[in-house]
Amino acid sequence: KMLPRIVKLAVTDVRFPTSLEQHGSDAMHTDPDYSAAYVVIDTDCGLKGFGLTFTLGKGTEIVVCAVEALARLVVGKSLQEIVSDFGGFYRLLTSESQLRWLGPEKGVIHLASAAVLNAVWDLWARAEGKPLWKLLVDMDPKQIVSCIDFRYITDALTEEEALDILLKAREGRKQREDQMLREGYPAYTTSCAWLGYSDELLTQLCADALGNGWTKFKVKVGADLEDDRRRCRLIREMIGPSNTLMMDANQRWDVAEAIRWVSSLADFKPLWIEEPTCPDDILGHAAISKALAPLGIGVASGEQCHNRVMFKQFLQASALFVQIDSCRLGSVNENLAVLLMAHKFQVPVCPHAGGVGLCELVQHLILFDYICVSGSLANRMCEYVDHLHEHFASPVVIRNGHYIAPEDIGYSCEMLESSVQSHRYPEGDVWKANTSKPEVKMDTF
Amino acid sequence: KMLPRIVKLAVTDVRFPTSLEQHGSDAMHTDPDYSAAYVVIDTDCGLKGFGLTFTLGKGTEIVVCAVEALARLVVGKSLQEIVSDFGGFYRLLTSESQLRWLGPEKGVIHLASAAVLNAVWDLWARAEGKPLWKLLVDMDPKQIVSCIDFRYITDALTEEEALDILLKAREGRKQREDQMLREGYPAYTTSCAWLGYSDELLTQLCADALGNGWTKFKVKVGADLEDDRRRCRLIREMIGPSNTLMMDANQRWDVAEAIRWVSSLADFKPLWIEEPTCPDDILGHAAISKALAPLGIGVASGEQCHNRVMFKQFLQASALFVQIDSCRLGSVNENLAVLLMAHKFQVPVCPHAGGVGLCELVQHLILFDYICVSGSLANRMCEYVDHLHEHFASPVVIRNGHYIAPEDIGYSCEMLESSVQSHRYPEGDVWKANTSKPEVKMDTF
Repeated sequence: KMLPRIVKLAVTDVRFPTSLEQHGSDAMHTDPDYSAAYVVIDTDCGLKGFGLTFTLGKGTEIVVCAVEALARLVVGKSLQEIVSDFGGFYRLLTSESQLRWLGPEKGVIHLASAAVLNAVWDLWARAEGKPLWKLLVDMDPKQIVSCIDFRYITDALTEEEALDILLKAREGRKQREDQMLREGYPAYTTSCAWLGYSDELLTQLCADALGNGWTKFKVKVGADLEDDRRRCRLIREMIGPSNTLMMDANQRWDVAEAIRWVSSLADFKPLWIEEPTCPDDILGHAAISKALAPLGIGVASGEQCHNRVMFKQFLQASALFVQIDSCRLGSVNENLAVLLMAHKFQVPVCPHAGGVGLCELVQHLILFDYICVSGSLANRMCEYVDHLHEHFASPVVIRNGHYIAPEDIGYSCEMLESSVQSHRYPEGDVWKANTSKPEVKMDTF
Repeated sequence: KMLPRIVKLAVTDVRFPTSLEQHGSDAMHTDPDYSAAYVVIDTDCGLKGFGLTFTLGKGTEIVVCAVEALARLVVGKSLQEIVSDFGGFYRLLTSESQLRWLGPEKGVIHLASAAVLNAVWDLWARAEGKPLWKLLVDMDPKQIVSCIDFRYITDALTEEEALDILLKAREGRKQREDQMLREGYPAYTTSCAWLGYSDELLTQLCADALGNGWTKFKVKVGADLEDDRRRCRLIREMIGPSNTLMMDANQRWDVAEAIRWVSSLADFKPLWIEEPTCPDDILGHAAISKALAPLGIGVASGEQCHNRVMFKQFLQASALFVQIDSCRLGSVNENLAVLLMAHKFQVPVCPHAGGVGLCELVQHLILFDYICVSGSLANRMCEYVDHLHEHFASPVVIRNGHYIAPEDIGYSCEMLESSVQSHRYPEGDVWKANTSKPEVKMDTF
């Protein structure tokens, strides 16, 4: 077992021109270029750690700048030093007394913390020779708890309660691990129905997905009600009444508008409406949830829920499908807090994924959730989007609508060096060939 | 009347080494170097606009980078174009489809939006030849309302309600304006009792402040209970029972701890406890507020309340002293929304100030609040801190514990060119003389 010391942290602005084909388009993000601030940690023993945070193109350079500001807190530390008090290291990064003004624990600086911490977790898993989910599964509950910063959440979950949850869930753990290795974790696909896709493309992608064993589908809504009704009818007819349909509005509405709009889509029987309004609006989500409950429609949110304190309140205020994000929250550390709180409040965690690398990362967390925390698959599934996996050294494997548990060591977000080089912004080949594009997009906003 | 077009937006990283003397030290921010991302707008007619956002030192370069990303959305626009649909321009900046992922409307990207929009408001006031508060006071209520983005707040305040509030408050407006010009707006001082100050310094500063007519004082608490009791007793004895004392914990506690700690400071009769816990914890603040109400202690928050949607929920969940911030929120536009919501919920607005430039900026907003929105001074006062004003072209004027209404045109945040040059980071003379300092501070964190 190696105990490496971190000697260098490098960060790269990597962008993919996804907006050219309207991949990822929704009611609020009309032309995303899926991007990442990509972190590589070097150690004194040759072992590396890879991490990233996901962005939508413009502004990735700001996150890169923030990672550089945090790097000074990481370089020089040994892995042992970090993981022996990982909760303390988390706080060192997220509560540095001058930098915290820029958040605290939100926005650019928190996305940057996530990229850095994801790389540290990757390094740790590699040092232990395990995939990250297995590192977590094998970890002593006390050590799991020591990775969490409980500041500001003890009114919802104490350290003792967290430990108790983990100890109770040890029963049946081995069987659940075997089950995951055998069957994988249930997934749903968002790839069929981006807002910018034509009806023809939507129909074709739905048919293909059904053929590949998918049973759970998400459709983007919120730009135009008649379009939404047409698209939802189309997809519900394609998938039939017994498959699962979710809807995603990407923050398009105010509270009253959300209730009205979703009520008029109730015929199509969605399991949930995702992000009906501002991701900061805890009380608004609670009001929407209460109004839609009689229609059998749940509310989901989380991909822009910026920290554990926000998730705590979402859980305190109403039931919610908890959509953790591996890069919005402060890496594994903060996601562990949210998984444990969600279990205490007995609501399902259904991770956000897609973008670039999010599927690769978050599959590890949801495997841990099933094996060591929730022990349940009821109303649970992990988002899947089938773009950009080819750029990763250990891409996700999907079989029959399930995430197959990763076997490669680490946290699965190492990118191929060739992909990094060609997609560096603005100097990579992909962008040199597209030089006029960013300006054009700005002007047409 | 000039109708300038913006031809250039420049931003500078300006830092003041305030940590050397523990100015600004509190339970969470032990060594702030008050800093700013300082924006200068140039126009085609020679008129300039000056704006800033406040930071604590490290990481200012990240905000500078974010301002540069936003500049592309501003340069080329005419002032007329912007102010004829200022709400729309606000949304253009804050909801740009790729950049919004980095917030939305929070953290670094929102601080940067504030800096840019502050400069635009300054430009507008200069173009009209008025101090900003007077520009607002003279503005047609419909135009005030058109500056606000009502997205996500219509469940608390509609455009019609906002207009109605402004129209009703026209009664007595002239008298209130005259009163402000005569007496100024009541202030309280935070300069006597920073956490890092010795008891001797605290005693001396208190005596000086009383001599200068101050009647309202704030003390920093939260690091050590016995220290807090000693310091609070000292200051209460100095100021006597009839003057006002506020306490500020700067986010130090969890919910239960906050209630316990503040309860044991109740003897010293604070008007409010400020930021008892995480600034994101709406429900936590409500629980603390409920527990402390029987002791006659209120709860205040806002300097890190990151947008109008958070303020909306704080107001919906419980009573609160609303501490608007001229740089945390999206400039005048978003602060107008919060002033109007606070009035609807009938709670006092007591702005956050201090840092560098915050007093200069926020005095304009609270003058507008009194003259055109709240019409009341009950339990209302604006924070004052007596540092760094000498670096501004039109520094605040305090007389007898009141902010004197500014007469100079603009938004008062133009810095002296000599100050900007000598405090540029890292190349200014002040920092060249202190080169080893940032590294030392990092290591001792």
